[in-house]
Amino acid sequence: MEFLFTMPETRVLFGRGAFSKLKEEVGRLGCSAPLVLTTPSKRSRERIERALPPLKYELYDGARMHVPLESVEGALEFMKGRTFDCLAAVGGGSSIGLAKALALRTGLPIIAVPTTYAGSEMTPIWGITEKGVKTTGRDGRVLPKSVIYDPELFASLPASVAGVSAMNALAHCVEALYAENANPVTDLFAEDAIRLLTGNLGASLRGDDQEALESVLRGAWMGGMVLAMTTMGLHHKLCHTLGGTLDLPHAETHAVVLPHVIAFNREHAEDAMKKIARGFGVTTAFDAARAAHALLTEIGAKNALKDLGMKSEDIERIADLATRNKYYNPRPFGAAELVPLLENAYWGRPPV
Amino acid sequence: MEFLFTMPETRVLFGRGAFSKLKEEVGRLGCSAPLVLTTPSKRSRERIERALPPLKYELYDGARMHVPLESVEGALEFMKGRTFDCLAAVGGGSSIGLAKALALRTGLPIIAVPTTYAGSEMTPIWGITEKGVKTTGRDGRVLPKSVIYDPELFASLPASVAGVSAMNALAHCVEALYAENANPVTDLFAEDAIRLLTGNLGASLRGDDQEALESVLRGAWMGGMVLAMTTMGLHHKLCHTLGGTLDLPHAETHAVVLPHVIAFNREHAEDAMKKIARGFGVTTAFDAARAAHALLTEIGAKNALKDLGMKSEDIERIADLATRNKYYNPRPFGAAELVPLLENAYWGRPPV
Repeated sequence: MEFLFTMPETRVLFGRGAFSKLKEEVGRLGCSAPLVLTTPSKRSRERIERALPPLKYELYDGARMHVPLESVEGALEFMKGRTFDCLAAVGGGSSIGLAKALALRTGLPIIAVPTTYAGSEMTPIWGITEKGVKTTGRDGRVLPKSVIYDPELFASLPASVAGVSAMNALAHCVEALYAENANPVTDLFAEDAIRLLTGNLGASLRGDDQEALESVLRGAWMGGMVLAMTTMGLHHKLCHTLGGTLDLPHAETHAVVLPHVIAFNREHAEDAMKKIARGFGVTTAFDAARAAHALLTEIGAKNALKDLGMKSEDIERIADLATRNKYYNPRPFGAAELVPLLENAYWGRPPV
Repeated sequence: MEFLFTMPETRVLFGRGAFSKLKEEVGRLGCSAPLVLTTPSKRSRERIERALPPLKYELYDGARMHVPLESVEGALEFMKGRTFDCLAAVGGGSSIGLAKALALRTGLPIIAVPTTYAGSEMTPIWGITEKGVKTTGRDGRVLPKSVIYDPELFASLPASVAGVSAMNALAHCVEALYAENANPVTDLFAEDAIRLLTGNLGASLRGDDQEALESVLRGAWMGGMVLAMTTMGLHHKLCHTLGGTLDLPHAETHAVVLPHVIAFNREHAEDAMKKIARGFGVTTAFDAARAAHALLTEIGAKNALKDLGMKSEDIERIADLATRNKYYNPRPFGAAELVPLLENAYWGRPPV
């Protein structure tokens, strides 16, 4: 047993109605002039208007998916001539991603209030897209100082968004278990999160099961922590390639690909696969892959890349692109091994 | 579900031979002139002399149990006219405690290399004893920046020290599970640590089971983390009173008292008790209390306070002193309820 363990120091408030404590969290950082970042949605604006006064703040609602450079520059332009001492991101990956990009330029601390399960709020990982190319990196300055998880903000999330977003969180946990830099804490978190996510996702989407929703949110939080602490493998590389090259939707792509990658890696990383199976509540990693595939149907998500905008002639190209850079994955592979995996994911077949 | 989660940012290196990386850890903090703190033991001195050169350092080996003010002042005297930029504590609670007391005065960062299981290295808790009275507190400045767990340093620990030290770690986990400020992470850590500690302690003391020893050390690390994140209850209050008033030995007292406190609290904090039982690998919390008591015999530890220097006439006084200040415990109690508990612990009877 040998490992290095470091844990990012992020304060987490979890609980129904916790969003109302956003202004206190601003004060706790010694701040009083937040720039609030969100997407252009009426609901977000209203929420923020309810929660923040009497604290003075300004709102920039130009956050967009994949953090295009234009949105970052737009926000920087908006900040000119005004004084802010912190950034408050209220929303999903787009809002939190924009806050991170701004933190990278300005050094301002971030408070994040996530409204999806993707987990970015717990990581020092940033990404900015310029001319269709997304650059990502890790920087301690972009790690939120404080995160508020309020299950009430998730109750109104459409099932079509919530389901695949939770599958994205599930993917972090699966890949964390066989990561080269896994440690006993990431192992514990990841297995527990898989159990919470797979055991409660279906029920959480029905809208009347508060406990299930809280369990999914807790699992997603842990998924974010393991994402921060480990390096992802084949699954993330494939999804990154599919998203970046073909502009497929982020969370939906994760959801479709995950069952196939579990099956692909199942003969490797024996210990990790035991934990994955245990988290899913099944006997073998292959059962887990099948269960992940079945979960897509249960949550009403698409299970085929062809339904997300991929063309069959893209398969070989993606297999090729996804093997250009070396990275760790428990099962070694070349482009030839990825083609059947992508074929299955393309057609929406069960994992083999 | 509602909780606040904060995790101290301590870097942890775990692995056989990791002690040899102490000088690199000093450099990683941007430091080059450590004051090394330890107890007056030939083995410690030799270890340090092997590991640290060519790094220049000075050694102060005046660490003593319970961190008497005199030892702190002695070290401060030693530091006068010399320049140090960090503190490296190599040893058990005495060495780490001295480093913490010095960090409180000087602001110097600490690197800790623990050689017992007590867990102080993962916490911001300090303690200094003046004229027989121990004052304790929490301060972020005393939390080590970096901790090195080297199982090789534990292989030579006498079984009589290792066993009760691990029982002390076990007590942190038990009380963390029913702490008012427990959270899902402390729950996960504590249950896993109970499993690791109780499942491997006996084997780890035989001296030929490296894997068992590593498991115990991992459990103790997690015990330290939950100690940092939660507030302890009756068990710690009782042990603190016994130690402070009667000068009973620290770890040994924890070991004797723990089974009785588990039994005492067993009808309360249902969820916590389930986790405690599961960690012990038994069915009920009462089984866990009995298993903890049996473990004392297995590891060759004393199971009676009378054998640690307590007198029977102390029982009522301790029960009284331990109820003078209010603190949280899942089962409410007054001095009268503590007397039978202390009677049993005094005579070394099984918990009832």
